Amino acid sequence: MTRFADLREAVCDANRRLAAVGLVTLSFGNASGVDRAAGVMVIKPSGVACDAVTPDQLVVVALEDGSIVEGALRPSSDTPTHLELYRRLEGIGGVVHTHSVEASAFAQARRPIPCLGTTHADHFAGPVPITRPLRDAEIDGDYELATGTVIADALASASLEALAMPAVLVAHHGPFTWGRDAAEAAVNAEAVELVAALAARTLALAPDETAMPEHLRERHFARKHGPAAYYGQHRPGPG
Amino acid sequence: MTRFADLREAVCDANRRLAAVGLVTLSFGNASGVDRAAGVMVIKPSGVACDAVTPDQLVVVALEDGSIVEGALRPSSDTPTHLELYRRLEGIGGVVHTHSVEASAFAQARRPIPCLGTTHADHFAGPVPITRPLRDAEIDGDYELATGTVIADALASASLEALAMPAVLVAHHGPFTWGRDAAEAAVNAEAVELVAALAARTLALAPDETAMPEHLRERHFARKHGPAAYYGQHRPGPG
Amino acid sequence: MTRFADLREAVCDANRRLAAVGLVTLSFGNASGVDRAAGVMVIKPSGVACDAVTPDQLVVVALEDGSIVEGALRPSSDTPTHLELYRRLEGIGGVVHTHSVEASAFAQARRPIPCLGTTHADHFAGPVPITRPLRDAEIDGDYELATGTVIADALASASLEALAMPAVLVAHHGPFTWGRDAAEAAVNAEAVELVAALAARTLALAPDETAMPEHLRERHFARKHGPAAYYGQHRPGPG
Amino acid sequence: MTRFADLREAVCDANRRLAAVGLVTLSFGNASGVDRAAGVMVIKPSGVACDAVTPDQLVVVALEDGSIVEGALRPSSDTPTHLELYRRLEGIGGVVHTHSVEASAFAQARRPIPCLGTTHADHFAGPVPITRPLRDAEIDGDYELATGTVIADALASASLEALAMPAVLVAHHGPFTWGRDAAEAAVNAEAVELVAALAARTLALAPDETAMPEHLRERHFARKHGPAAYYGQHRPGPG
Repeated sequence: MTRFADLREAVCDANRRLAAVGLVTLSFGNASGVDRAAGVMVIKPSGVACDAVTPDQLVVVALEDGSIVEGALRPSSDTPTHLELYRRLEGIGGVVHTHSVEASAFAQARRPIPCLGTTHADHFAGPVPITRPLRDAEIDGDYELATGTVIADALASASLEALAMPAVLVAHHGPFTWGRDAAEAAVNAEAVELVAALAARTLALAPDETAMPEHLRERHFARKHGPAAYYGQHRPGPG
Repeated sequence: MTRFADLREAVCDANRRLAAVGLVTLSFGNASGVDRAAGVMVIKPSGVACDAVTPDQLVVVALEDGSIVEGALRPSSDTPTHLELYRRLEGIGGVVHTHSVEASAFAQARRPIPCLGTTHADHFAGPVPITRPLRDAEIDGDYELATGTVIADALASASLEALAMPAVLVAHHGPFTWGRDAAEAAVNAEAVELVAALAARTLALAPDETAMPEHLRERHFARKHGPAAYYGQHRPGPG
Repeated sequence: MTRFADLREAVCDANRRLAAVGLVTLSFGNASGVDRAAGVMVIKPSGVACDAVTPDQLVVVALEDGSIVEGALRPSSDTPTHLELYRRLEGIGGVVHTHSVEASAFAQARRPIPCLGTTHADHFAGPVPITRPLRDAEIDGDYELATGTVIADALASASLEALAMPAVLVAHHGPFTWGRDAAEAAVNAEAVELVAALAARTLALAPDETAMPEHLRERHFARKHGPAAYYGQHRPGPG
Repeated sequence: MTRFADLREAVCDANRRLAAVGLVTLSFGNASGVDRAAGVMVIKPSGVACDAVTPDQLVVVALEDGSIVEGALRPSSDTPTHLELYRRLEGIGGVVHTHSVEASAFAQARRPIPCLGTTHADHFAGPVPITRPLRDAEIDGDYELATGTVIADALASASLEALAMPAVLVAHHGPFTWGRDAAEAAVNAEAVELVAALAARTLALAPDETAMPEHLRERHFARKHGPAAYYGQHRPGPG
């Protein structure tokens, strides 16, 4: 149990953070992190509450086929979704899934989260997409793998880079987010919940609102993410 | 006060959990647990706040007639409801009642909680039912017993097993939940509050939404509850 | 500073409770208690946050004319309202005022809180009344006294006893509650916020809902408050 | 790092308060304070979470041109907005910016917060204004400076004194607040979030509500802010 100690620690922290900030009720969520050089992913075990998980309970699985490399417990049932996202989305090092209330309401309503203000524009390059519903054959087959596929397809069909749009809503389900590591994926899970809360309240006050002015949206996103970014203490990557 | 020490501890923990997670304000809720072999139920005393109750304050009553076996305080006024549920619902070992805000709003609106997403499908085999309103004669008579009766009838008339649908809303009142023990009943009280919150927000964004696709609903419920369940660390029972 | 030590302690606890349960933001609220034999009321000083007040900061004023009996600080600006309520409402020993969000929204909308379920019926003998708006002459005159007058008038015109309806909404303002002592007034402030939250969510789900069945309402109120009350550990008084 | 120790402490406290009371998620907010005699402003560094900032991390910049006087980190990207507000608004000593949910929803809906009750009237001399949207040329140019300009213009065009209306909503963005020091600016950020929450809930219950009676509004504001103010323990200034 001594390999991947740092990654176990980081992924455990991300899972606990999800519970601490109220994004996860009971065991309805999970965070993972990846070590691409070693070809492994570390993920929460299935059915264990995020606020109680410990580094040694985490499960290490092979990126290629999901086989267990280290761990006595069964990995999260969402493991094939996480694996598919690491395979499809360039540059990501952490993935988070929650059923957080505000973002999941948009997922259940099968609506993208519209980009209505600078809080949103600071984090996401436009509306947060929603996947197409899964087909019956996909649900009957390798369901969790298909969930990863429709997420990656939603980004691809909108020509969005993963680190510029680090969240997608799965129809009838809830949000998946990612980032350069597990901590950043958890931050993006907080961000998507906040912008969903803002959008729902805005729509209650202004039902016909659809989007903020494009000029302002681009300026805010570029403040944090463009080649001339000047937000924070370091230059972010291409995302 | 030394008999039923473990059950007292477990029921006390469940009551305190209800307060800790915000499901119970003041004394508006209660949890109980059963020892079917000994023929007793342990329940919170009436009018005592969930976050202050101690194991020795709990009241032990006979399953058959509700007479006090141990305890200096009067048991919860909802005791006859709990007793009726233990008598009618096979396989349950714990019962919880709360007036949690989101689920009680559906109860007051006399609407079942529609099954709009996977969070719901993971826990409940379809919409969470609402009872018929009690008749005047039932309200004038053994009111709390009649409350248990309409809950059990709501399950029976929909051909639902208690552990597959571990929650019912009582019309004009609020949610009752159950499980294999008091802890699981408390978990289901959290789950029903979460799915009610999700449904209310979904309906605000998509007023015509009525149900998620049946194929997806069945798949998710089977992930956790069917004979081929693969969620969590152990195979669940028939529920 | 040694007289009224117990009352100071009790009133301080009630003020702190208001902050602890989230009913009071900043200094927007206050609790008082009375010693009718001594002819005094103890109340929070003006502009002091509820979560920071100490027993020795509380101000003791004469019931008859509001003159300061003990205390270095100015009493709450709502002092004349509290005094008027003690003079007009029989049997009360504590008063609380908050601007809690859900109840104040009904006050600002000038709607009574409809009685839509058993949570409400357990605590309040029908809809929580709203006062008439104050007249310009009342606003220009002894405004805080007039606030107490319209509260007491709202009870009187509906033939409601103070302990059976321990809350009134002041139009354009917020809730005032009372009880046999300051602690009970604070409990009623929690209860009115909860039933307002429930009613608002119920109305969002069922806009035409107006009242629960009268038969059920009476039964629930009588469980806790009637001569044959069987809720809690002691018989309540006439309220 | 020993100059401005008291101001650093006060501004750090204000930033931490914003996080503690739930107004700021992640790093989405900032507080500053000014020493007009020394010609400097102290502000949170960019991208640092409000709940983790320490006094020595804060950045001291020149009021006149924003150049760094003390500090190893880059100041908040909103620094030019804060500087413009100190230059334009007489008598203010602290500025706060958040993306708090309820107030930002009004900002995103481009609606002023209507003055619907005494909670609002106690703090703000009428509806909380919303700025005009920024023009494309302003967004392309010195965007953060222009944000300060439209805030100050919104006050000026409504003939409002800064301390009588210590909050403005920036269209598509969120609230800025101020006060005589950083602590008071943080209090006003709490107040604007509360009155936005109240207004949104009031409008859900009474969609046609537009304003409270003017007579009552003036009386409440004067209780706290007029020359004959009698709220709190000291006479407030001209605001």
